[in-house]
Amino acid sequence: MEQEFSSVLLENAVSQLSRLPGVGRKTALRLALHLLRQDEQTGVELGQSIIDLRRGISYCTCCHNISEQPLCPICSDVTRDTSVICVVESVKDVMSFERTGQYRGLYHVLGGLISPMDGVGPDALQIRSLVERVKGGCISEVILALSATMEGETTNFYIFRQLGSIPVKITQLARGVSVGNEIEYTDEVTLGRSLVNRTLFADSFAKR
Amino acid sequence: MEQEFSSVLLENAVSQLSRLPGVGRKTALRLALHLLRQDEQTGVELGQSIIDLRRGISYCTCCHNISEQPLCPICSDVTRDTSVICVVESVKDVMSFERTGQYRGLYHVLGGLISPMDGVGPDALQIRSLVERVKGGCISEVILALSATMEGETTNFYIFRQLGSIPVKITQLARGVSVGNEIEYTDEVTLGRSLVNRTLFADSFAKR
Repeated sequence: MEQEFSSVLLENAVSQLSRLPGVGRKTALRLALHLLRQDEQTGVELGQSIIDLRRGISYCTCCHNISEQPLCPICSDVTRDTSVICVVESVKDVMSFERTGQYRGLYHVLGGLISPMDGVGPDALQIRSLVERVKGGCISEVILALSATMEGETTNFYIFRQLGSIPVKITQLARGVSVGNEIEYTDEVTLGRSLVNRTLFADSFAKR
Repeated sequence: MEQEFSSVLLENAVSQLSRLPGVGRKTALRLALHLLRQDEQTGVELGQSIIDLRRGISYCTCCHNISEQPLCPICSDVTRDTSVICVVESVKDVMSFERTGQYRGLYHVLGGLISPMDGVGPDALQIRSLVERVKGGCISEVILALSATMEGETTNFYIFRQLGSIPVKITQLARGVSVGNEIEYTDEVTLGRSLVNRTLFADSFAKR
């Protein structure tokens, strides 16, 4: 690569920073110069935290969530309901569901969705380990909590078929009008699904 | 601060990343999870490059450009014209002028512009050291190369007054229509200046 700056250290930092997603060379230079304006401690702490992150974190051997231990805090939490598995696409989705405070079961992180267009087949995801987990343990319910997209539905269906022979309840997230959304701006497919799957009004008080 | 994630290492990396300009907690989390998806080497290299940057780079004692040595490569380049000083706002501006390939003199990096609104007075900038430099050396010309903004003009004028008693030629960048710009979209102040400071057409061939 052509060296643009007079300093090798700056050149190196800019190259490394520009490998981050959404960070081009201009932004990388801005970040590097920003770090140079801060006191030394700030820059060193940032660098060290990234090294520690990459060296210290691996994945839970059971649910594939990120974890500092072989078993993640959720899998090793004895107060949680170990008979329910919520299947999610990514680590971020685990965080989203945890933030709702409405779920006390376990997770299974697939690490992506089946997407033939992007060359992602079922074997690239943690589907086999999910099937083993459901076969082996005393699992009563598998919640498919994937995105309501083409890829999500495809993956849902694939998992549903893989689990077909196992006596377990397989559910998926409710589809319907997002809370806070106006009917006027909700697409007709969602409206259709929300109509077909309508719930008893009285139930909404009980569940809230 | 409230701890949002189950992993202390992730929490720490996200906190550190979100201190970067333009990076909020959501982006910081995205970056951290991206780093976790890469191989270990990538993350460690990034972290190390930031630490090296902050530990290894300091500022040139003469022109205040960033430098790994006490004297920056430009100040220590014996082939450059040491009688001309180009006064710029920041390290980035040095890079911009170097990219033009049209300048062979030295620089002086102020580290900002006078801006009473932001509480930046002349003493926060490298103006005193500029005056000392011009007084001490055999300087024939000082080029004021600051932004054509209120702050830039204020700083230009302040430096002009500070250098008033020293027998040195003080110039500033030409104001005019930007190359590639259409007259229709050029503001009237710029048009006025470009008219007052019009140059001989024949000269443009010689200078190109």
